[in-house]
Amino acid sequence: MAPRKNKLKVFSLGGLGEIGKNMTVMEYGNDIIIIDCGVAFPQDEMLGIDLVIPDFTYLIQNQKKIRGMFLTHAHEDHIGTVPYFLKEVNTKVYGTPLTLGLVGNKLKEHGLVSGTDMINMGPGETVNAGCFKVEFIRITHSVVDSVAISVQTPVGVVIHSGDFKIDHTPIQGEAMDLQRFAELGKKGVKLFLCESTNVLAPGYTMSERTIGTIFDQVFESSPNERLMVAMFSSNIDRIQQVLNCAVRYKRKVLFMGRSMVNAVKTAIELGYLDVPDGVIIELSMMRHHAPNQLVIVTTGSQGEPMAALSRMAASDHRQIDIVPGDKVIISASPIPGNEKLVSRVINDLMKLGAEVLYEGLMEVHVSGHAKQEELKLMHALIRPEYLMPVHGEFRHLKHHKDLAVSMGMPKENIFVMDIGDVLEITNSDAKINGTVPSGQLLVDGLGVGDVGNVVLRDRKHLSEDGMIIVAVGVSIHDGICQIISGPDIISRGFVFVRESDDLMLDAKAVVSDTLFEMEQKNTADRQYMKNKIKDDLREFIWQRTKRNPMIFPVLVEA
Amino acid sequence: MAPRKNKLKVFSLGGLGEIGKNMTVMEYGNDIIIIDCGVAFPQDEMLGIDLVIPDFTYLIQNQKKIRGMFLTHAHEDHIGTVPYFLKEVNTKVYGTPLTLGLVGNKLKEHGLVSGTDMINMGPGETVNAGCFKVEFIRITHSVVDSVAISVQTPVGVVIHSGDFKIDHTPIQGEAMDLQRFAELGKKGVKLFLCESTNVLAPGYTMSERTIGTIFDQVFESSPNERLMVAMFSSNIDRIQQVLNCAVRYKRKVLFMGRSMVNAVKTAIELGYLDVPDGVIIELSMMRHHAPNQLVIVTTGSQGEPMAALSRMAASDHRQIDIVPGDKVIISASPIPGNEKLVSRVINDLMKLGAEVLYEGLMEVHVSGHAKQEELKLMHALIRPEYLMPVHGEFRHLKHHKDLAVSMGMPKENIFVMDIGDVLEITNSDAKINGTVPSGQLLVDGLGVGDVGNVVLRDRKHLSEDGMIIVAVGVSIHDGICQIISGPDIISRGFVFVRESDDLMLDAKAVVSDTLFEMEQKNTADRQYMKNKIKDDLREFIWQRTKRNPMIFPVLVEA
Repeated sequence: MAPRKNKLKVFSLGGLGEIGKNMTVMEYGNDIIIIDCGVAFPQDEMLGIDLVIPDFTYLIQNQKKIRGMFLTHAHEDHIGTVPYFLKEVNTKVYGTPLTLGLVGNKLKEHGLVSGTDMINMGPGETVNAGCFKVEFIRITHSVVDSVAISVQTPVGVVIHSGDFKIDHTPIQGEAMDLQRFAELGKKGVKLFLCESTNVLAPGYTMSERTIGTIFDQVFESSPNERLMVAMFSSNIDRIQQVLNCAVRYKRKVLFMGRSMVNAVKTAIELGYLDVPDGVIIELSMMRHHAPNQLVIVTTGSQGEPMAALSRMAASDHRQIDIVPGDKVIISASPIPGNEKLVSRVINDLMKLGAEVLYEGLMEVHVSGHAKQEELKLMHALIRPEYLMPVHGEFRHLKHHKDLAVSMGMPKENIFVMDIGDVLEITNSDAKINGTVPSGQLLVDGLGVGDVGNVVLRDRKHLSEDGMIIVAVGVSIHDGICQIISGPDIISRGFVFVRESDDLMLDAKAVVSDTLFEMEQKNTADRQYMKNKIKDDLREFIWQRTKRNPMIFPVLVEA
Repeated sequence: MAPRKNKLKVFSLGGLGEIGKNMTVMEYGNDIIIIDCGVAFPQDEMLGIDLVIPDFTYLIQNQKKIRGMFLTHAHEDHIGTVPYFLKEVNTKVYGTPLTLGLVGNKLKEHGLVSGTDMINMGPGETVNAGCFKVEFIRITHSVVDSVAISVQTPVGVVIHSGDFKIDHTPIQGEAMDLQRFAELGKKGVKLFLCESTNVLAPGYTMSERTIGTIFDQVFESSPNERLMVAMFSSNIDRIQQVLNCAVRYKRKVLFMGRSMVNAVKTAIELGYLDVPDGVIIELSMMRHHAPNQLVIVTTGSQGEPMAALSRMAASDHRQIDIVPGDKVIISASPIPGNEKLVSRVINDLMKLGAEVLYEGLMEVHVSGHAKQEELKLMHALIRPEYLMPVHGEFRHLKHHKDLAVSMGMPKENIFVMDIGDVLEITNSDAKINGTVPSGQLLVDGLGVGDVGNVVLRDRKHLSEDGMIIVAVGVSIHDGICQIISGPDIISRGFVFVRESDDLMLDAKAVVSDTLFEMEQKNTADRQYMKNKIKDDLREFIWQRTKRNPMIFPVLVEA
């Protein structure tokens, strides 16, 4: 068993195909550390599912080894699973103040306020965790207080980039600590886990500061309009830029949407937002200000149907009506899959007479992720021995590999991995070796993991063709079955019934024939009877409609 | 009634929010003509729906007035409803040879071969239809034989652009007849219905011919690879360019996918494809050729799960396996909403070792729709008195209006309309006045219009929370109800049952309590009993799971 102790294992436990996105684990001997603990959002085929969390069975089984969880930044896909994890496993949670502040809000919602050991740790700080020495390094991203993580392990230094862009002129705090990455690189970095989100995009991502300039232009050119800005609530720097414009152009700011209000409250408490007195107003005070003295900052930049902006667009918001003259900035990119939702909100807002400024028309958003030239710069500073591209679909990881190869890195030193694959690193080599239990757990209401493939398949079937219940009262004596009542037929999601009475009457007749046939045969095998009803009715329905509803024969014995 | 006869009415009957996309109608006095007759594809919330067709009730009611249907080009969103329409209303159908050829394939599938009066009409030709004189004008688009339509009406000339781009170097046939548009414009055009698909895109759309150059580069740089090209089957010019490359680089071409094979067959029969003998091979001959002597042209460029390419990517195609060394060109843009499907196919192909060339990485596709500068050029040539932007979401139509205003057109002469809105034009003015019955009919299997909002709402509910059937055998005598058997509980799409036996046993106990309570009360009101079972069980399930399955109490009398 001795040799196993000399191996560092690195693997990812979740992320819906985006390896490393939600949870990365490092293990050496008896020590484990966890980097990030996030959620994924359900894909279209995951009907009725609220969230997708990593399957952390491996960590439950090995909880005695866990020396701490380290969070890179406060986005849902990196912190959203923390409450679910802490319900199962107790561990110290390390993060920067804003990250832990927003995690704290989550824990409250899950009734986990006390008992959690949350440890504030700033960029540049280091902590020992078993055989690992973990350091936070300042980076820039679309939420403040984001860090990369450098881990000194017995086989060398491992750097996890977190999510980053290289912003030389951030809105608050210092710029990215490029010198530290260079210093570590100079001394020798064994493995670099680097994000791949924007690896298909050439060039550089613009600074967050460019958005302030655009906002300023919009404010200046809109003296008579009410302004609204939709964005992610976690983008504190962008909220600060709206606040700056509001002060400059003497407007009051109103925050809408639960997550927006919470994030702003936390950011103010922790000193991440600089707000002069009297700039922020409550909803109840809105009527005291002329529309052109207001900025409304709202959730809903992804067209989420329940978010504040979508409800305003659908004329379904209790307090705010969109009126001609309103100017709405959608300061975000649609996440893949949300394009149509966002389009719908834009159309609805425009139909109500609002002017809408959105990406494609105007530079009202910049990405929080590094593009090709920034990725190359990080590779050049760090020059790792091994690379594991993370955060991306397979095609992103593959292109990231190509990018590294184009910079001279040997192909065989780059590991494009799958979730659960274990990368084993010794002092002398690295290879993918085996897997750990991993994957996705679906969260539906209070249930975690109780909705699986069978349930989803049934939901899909029900959603496409609906269902028919056939109820029959039978009496079975001495192996002979008699029909006592029915058949009664109930359908849902199949066809609009009043239009199709004939169809349902005929269906009833088909079942009656089947039942009669079985009575004649003196059959009392319930399963056989059910199957026969189902088969005959399915055949009839298919012939008549080319549809295939789920059929439930219910035989009730009297 | 006399004044009504002096008005031209123009309106759109379908298009899922994209006005004019699927069906445009012109009416004057006792004459009606129809332009296009297409389908829309179901939106995400239209669960289980196959197609969406315009509600043409108005045309059924006024069928005596119909003087003909004119088709601009052979895309589904312009011809897909023809069979459904002809089942209800008989009319002459005018189109160019390829358009009618592909419509003919559809009619065969629907068993409508005979009895349809299909009239070939080339660009430049004119036909009288009641008081209208209808002329086809040659345009360029992503399917050959596309036309715009000019209609001489009693109140002046109306031009419908169809779908177009301005391609000065088309692959076959002549370029767009810009002179004719200019000539009509010079004489005076009353109304221009102009497509708006790419109105948000600055600049010009590149010529289809540029794709040939890219294909050539790929063929030249891939001497050892099997090549595959995924594209829309109707893009005959692009198919021709693949064939040209195949001949040049001595490869055989294999067509995969039903719609691809049919389109190619029709195009060859009608002389729209120039294919030297022996270039096209059948699937059965594939094994006689080395992989690097083959090009496979396939459907599936939109990631459609059942299309040939998707099945190959999922290792689920019977005849073709993707192997390392294959090079796949996806020569199309994802239609909004299909982005994730396309990404999945790309990832799957890459995981199997194929190289994938797709838009964003390489210029392997050009749009078939005019961008801003082309739209401006058409406006400049035609200089219509009135403009009705068509083919686009509201935001596209609104931006099209802004574009026309920027060219000097008076705002009040531009009509951004909704489906069913009627534009009335006289010799002296134009205004939106009233509506006609319009909207969408959902096609599900053989049913047209029998799935409505109630059915869709039930499907959505079933898809998100599943369902529970509670079966109870009761005996009702003298107003007193006795429980004879049950309750039995069946669930689908709710929760994975073996994992949750406790939950289901407890649910049964809840229903038993409810039944016992009702027996005590001597209640025999079936509806009351059903509601009580439903309410009690719903409350229990919600408390335990925070889910809300559809509950069906089935009381069977014995």
